[in-house]
Amino acid sequence: MQNCDLIVSAAYCLPVAPNNQVFEDYALAVHQGVILEVGPRQQIEAAFQPAGSLDLSRHILMPGLINTHGHAAMTLLRGAGEDQALQAWLTDTIWPLEGRLMNSEFVGLGTELAIAEMVRSGTTTFSDMYFFPEVVAKTAAELGVRVQIAFPVIEMPNAWSTSVEEGFHKGLALHDEYRHHSRVNVAFGPHAAYTVSAENLTKVGTYANELDTNVQIHLHENAAEVADAFARQGKSWIDHVHEVGLLGPNLQAAHVTQVTEAELDLIAACGAKVLHCPSSNMKLASGTCPVGRFHQAGVCVGLGTDGAASNNRLDLFKEVHLAALLAKHSSADPTQGAAADMVRMATLDGARALGIDHLTGSLQANKSADFISINLDHVGMLPLYDPFATVVHGNCGDAVDHVYVAGEPLLHDKTFTRIDAAELAGRVNHWHRTQV
Amino acid sequence: MQNCDLIVSAAYCLPVAPNNQVFEDYALAVHQGVILEVGPRQQIEAAFQPAGSLDLSRHILMPGLINTHGHAAMTLLRGAGEDQALQAWLTDTIWPLEGRLMNSEFVGLGTELAIAEMVRSGTTTFSDMYFFPEVVAKTAAELGVRVQIAFPVIEMPNAWSTSVEEGFHKGLALHDEYRHHSRVNVAFGPHAAYTVSAENLTKVGTYANELDTNVQIHLHENAAEVADAFARQGKSWIDHVHEVGLLGPNLQAAHVTQVTEAELDLIAACGAKVLHCPSSNMKLASGTCPVGRFHQAGVCVGLGTDGAASNNRLDLFKEVHLAALLAKHSSADPTQGAAADMVRMATLDGARALGIDHLTGSLQANKSADFISINLDHVGMLPLYDPFATVVHGNCGDAVDHVYVAGEPLLHDKTFTRIDAAELAGRVNHWHRTQV
Repeated sequence: MQNCDLIVSAAYCLPVAPNNQVFEDYALAVHQGVILEVGPRQQIEAAFQPAGSLDLSRHILMPGLINTHGHAAMTLLRGAGEDQALQAWLTDTIWPLEGRLMNSEFVGLGTELAIAEMVRSGTTTFSDMYFFPEVVAKTAAELGVRVQIAFPVIEMPNAWSTSVEEGFHKGLALHDEYRHHSRVNVAFGPHAAYTVSAENLTKVGTYANELDTNVQIHLHENAAEVADAFARQGKSWIDHVHEVGLLGPNLQAAHVTQVTEAELDLIAACGAKVLHCPSSNMKLASGTCPVGRFHQAGVCVGLGTDGAASNNRLDLFKEVHLAALLAKHSSADPTQGAAADMVRMATLDGARALGIDHLTGSLQANKSADFISINLDHVGMLPLYDPFATVVHGNCGDAVDHVYVAGEPLLHDKTFTRIDAAELAGRVNHWHRTQV
Repeated sequence: MQNCDLIVSAAYCLPVAPNNQVFEDYALAVHQGVILEVGPRQQIEAAFQPAGSLDLSRHILMPGLINTHGHAAMTLLRGAGEDQALQAWLTDTIWPLEGRLMNSEFVGLGTELAIAEMVRSGTTTFSDMYFFPEVVAKTAAELGVRVQIAFPVIEMPNAWSTSVEEGFHKGLALHDEYRHHSRVNVAFGPHAAYTVSAENLTKVGTYANELDTNVQIHLHENAAEVADAFARQGKSWIDHVHEVGLLGPNLQAAHVTQVTEAELDLIAACGAKVLHCPSSNMKLASGTCPVGRFHQAGVCVGLGTDGAASNNRLDLFKEVHLAALLAKHSSADPTQGAAADMVRMATLDGARALGIDHLTGSLQANKSADFISINLDHVGMLPLYDPFATVVHGNCGDAVDHVYVAGEPLLHDKTFTRIDAAELAGRVNHWHRTQV
């Protein structure tokens, strides 16, 4: 028998790869943070001598969720300025609040709160695009979660960078600092094609290719943005981003609620990724990302919460559920948004979108042991006909009880291992009372 | 000082009437199941000498939710036949399962499970339309929840009634039995205009007027149903229901995703009520109930989960959230679906739809003490800018910790007072293992 650190056994296992499979009475052998083998419990127990074990006898075991688009620190603005028109919400609420409150402490506290909420609801990897990315990187590294930091490339002077040049300088230094980090990737985060010049977008593309790094951008979030593109330049932002050389396999386009057939084919041909944010798109009335059409064209689509200010939660299980409902609703076809496809979008396809599917996104040998469990002891989850339906339509966020990244528990039996939730709540409430 | 049974004090109170108000440090005085007074905590504590108290210092206190449309026992079919087309789902999954499994034990167990889930997530009143309504009534009465039983009027012979006449007979006897019950109302539940003849719909109208009783019906759930109406009779089911004399203030029309301006005006003029079921409508790709248009026309709209088979949860907080998102999304206007309107739809307007707003739906003197609390100690609810936003967008179902009906606790600190959740889960799992 082979020694290993941990055997995790579960009543139901959804490894995601192979696709659309439920295995009963299954187990993982984990050693030094890596999955050695996945198989029937008896087979794993016969082959491995573990130092520890986790027995999930009334649980679904699945890969940790991957939140591909968000602005973590905006948890501190959760619930500010509800039910406003988009422009009023930005100009009257969010930007003035950010202008007044933004500093590294804001980002540290808001990111800590965001990570607590994401881990609590089963997210093991997230992508972030916000000011003070070095604070986000440090906070995520300390709390043990996997992260892609898309540092802001934005021309408007702000609390973090007085110029786009300073942003590039700081961001590239951050990229260099985390070059060999096992859980933190640093990418480029040009805010949008309408806020960053063609010259600077080209520069992003050049650097990203040189450094073999990802680029995340807001693209065609709503119809007004596209109309504005045509008014300004006679072509869409998708075409513009392609012309400046940015539309490639390392580009992650958030939202994309508006897309012609030609643009869709272009995105597919270039291998760019799409990040679907159903709650945010519905809440801001931005339109619908046509996930079914993207899937048909072979485009990889990840799932995101966006920031808490436009959600208001960072619970990716809610997005999985909404993605399913919105796919059925928007196509008038209840066979769309099939449960297994939605689960794959929240896990393996999210990892593909972030370029880390060699590392995470499914429960397979040689991948990192990034897994979560859903406790089925809830009156709202009985009886169990179909674990995929439970994951997608069961409102599972609060039923997550164990969360592991690289074989280390971040949540054990609904208790954080690296966060004191009461102490964190005290600091958040104190900040809100004294600063807002 | 006046004696009372209970003072409930809370950090935040949303009484719903007055509309759109948040009161901090507020309290209720409750005696013999009735709210005596609502006011600032110090004022209530100065005026009343309570036998007991409930101190909700980190909570939102609000009226119990009212689930106006569902089929409780279908919890036992939760997750069966996912992602099918509507007709295949009904003919290949639901109807065969119901045909094979339907009996009074099925309804008793499924209803108990449904009530557990609803109470757990803050619902104090529900409406039901299903076979064996006498079992639903008995189960609800035993478990202490408030209920409207819309007994089935359906022409197809079934496990409960071999003919529509037998259904009328049994239903009217049930109405008589519960005539003076404080928590159980019995109403008529003609399934739909396409499954019940004009003659029998007329009969329902006549009886309902005589008995001063409500009528609940599925009406214009999707476009195919309306097209079928025109093919059969050259007019819509709304016009048909009006012509047979059923479209009045006691009519509760579930779904109504399709409505012309003329039909909308007719519904408004007749004072009929509409029951919005956003999850079910999205999941079955049925269309969108135009809540904003109904509100503009002065039509009362309640909120419902529909059955768990098409949801898959009976958590009305999820419906509140979806109703808000869907209102914004479908109107392309983020100012629609305002949080306070959504909360009123789930409470006071639901009570109005069921004709029990003299009794419940808001925290006001002389109403029944039907209230719930939301515990704010959750990393996903911090910080608190706006309690209405928390209620609507906070995914609050699992944060409910106290649920009272008529001054009696049904859930205390997340523990059922009348249900043994583990024992119930055991019976449900046993049923599923041995029967399905």
